[in-house]
Amino acid sequence: MQTAIREIDNGVNVTALLGAREALSQAPEAARFTWRTSCDWVMGTHSRATVEGFHGLGEEQRHKTRFAFDTDHPEVFASEDHGPTPVEYVLVGLAGCLTAGIAAVAQHRGIQLNSVRARLEGDMDIQGILGMDRDVRNGFDDVRVTFEIDADATREEIEALVAQSQKRSAVFDILTNPTHVSVQVK
Amino acid sequence: MQTAIREIDNGVNVTALLGAREALSQAPEAARFTWRTSCDWVMGTHSRATVEGFHGLGEEQRHKTRFAFDTDHPEVFASEDHGPTPVEYVLVGLAGCLTAGIAAVAQHRGIQLNSVRARLEGDMDIQGILGMDRDVRNGFDDVRVTFEIDADATREEIEALVAQSQKRSAVFDILTNPTHVSVQVK
Repeated sequence: MQTAIREIDNGVNVTALLGAREALSQAPEAARFTWRTSCDWVMGTHSRATVEGFHGLGEEQRHKTRFAFDTDHPEVFASEDHGPTPVEYVLVGLAGCLTAGIAAVAQHRGIQLNSVRARLEGDMDIQGILGMDRDVRNGFDDVRVTFEIDADATREEIEALVAQSQKRSAVFDILTNPTHVSVQVK
Repeated sequence: MQTAIREIDNGVNVTALLGAREALSQAPEAARFTWRTSCDWVMGTHSRATVEGFHGLGEEQRHKTRFAFDTDHPEVFASEDHGPTPVEYVLVGLAGCLTAGIAAVAQHRGIQLNSVRARLEGDMDIQGILGMDRDVRNGFDDVRVTFEIDADATREEIEALVAQSQKRSAVFDILTNPTHVSVQVK
């Protein structure tokens, strides 16, 4: 299997990740990360968020770039559609999380990926956010993720990759389990 | 109060939203939306998602623009940091959702907003995603949202805006309550 691991390349540095895991087992407080965004209202339902700094490995960290994202509502909600809706950003996060996990697990298992495409759909009854029906929730009532994966592996191995990625996915966990969120005015 | 509503302008078309609510009460099936993203693996933990089409009001809809988003892991995870992490996209979505809600509620209540800034933090122990400790969850263990709002209103009125936005927020609901997510290989 070590031969296979050396031959394949999905661009994931598994050796470094295993080293990090070993290092963190000696210093678990370094594993505590805080991710951040700062968001400014622009006008109407349009706002702009930036992502740059975060905390982890015991100190302040910084992305190489300052990322900026516009969020808005679409024209069918009488808005100007300057960016995706907030819920579409959640789907983007879920897609990226599961896909990165598939690449990492494939690398660890010595499976060469050729292509990975995910299609995500989130159903939502907007009677919830419009306050029309107390029995309708505001968020998604169902999310479906479908992967098309071309890899040098059997269908069973590919399904196992996806299952393992799901098991370790931060965003899958955030969607499927409740998280405490506090909202306050400074 | 009607005078106040006419004088203020937060850029939200409340009349259109109330009209939509009225129209949807006659045709609730039109309120069923499906939001989508499609995501392609690039290399390593880097993937690129696009957002364009969605379904709602009984037919296919399209954003004015095709939005594209890179997701990656940072250099401290031995990755190349081509984009924010997946969990940061979730924070971007939460920020945009609560902020849009504040603007809409303020418009409805006749409160002029001057500026709204949100700062979000999500704590995560990466021992979860690294599979080091079964008792550590993969996702956020706590999310904090702090708003700084300048508006022509009392502190109590501003706090009530934020509370109402939270009550009707799709992404707040997605984080705080469990959602069914199915993941399959085509």
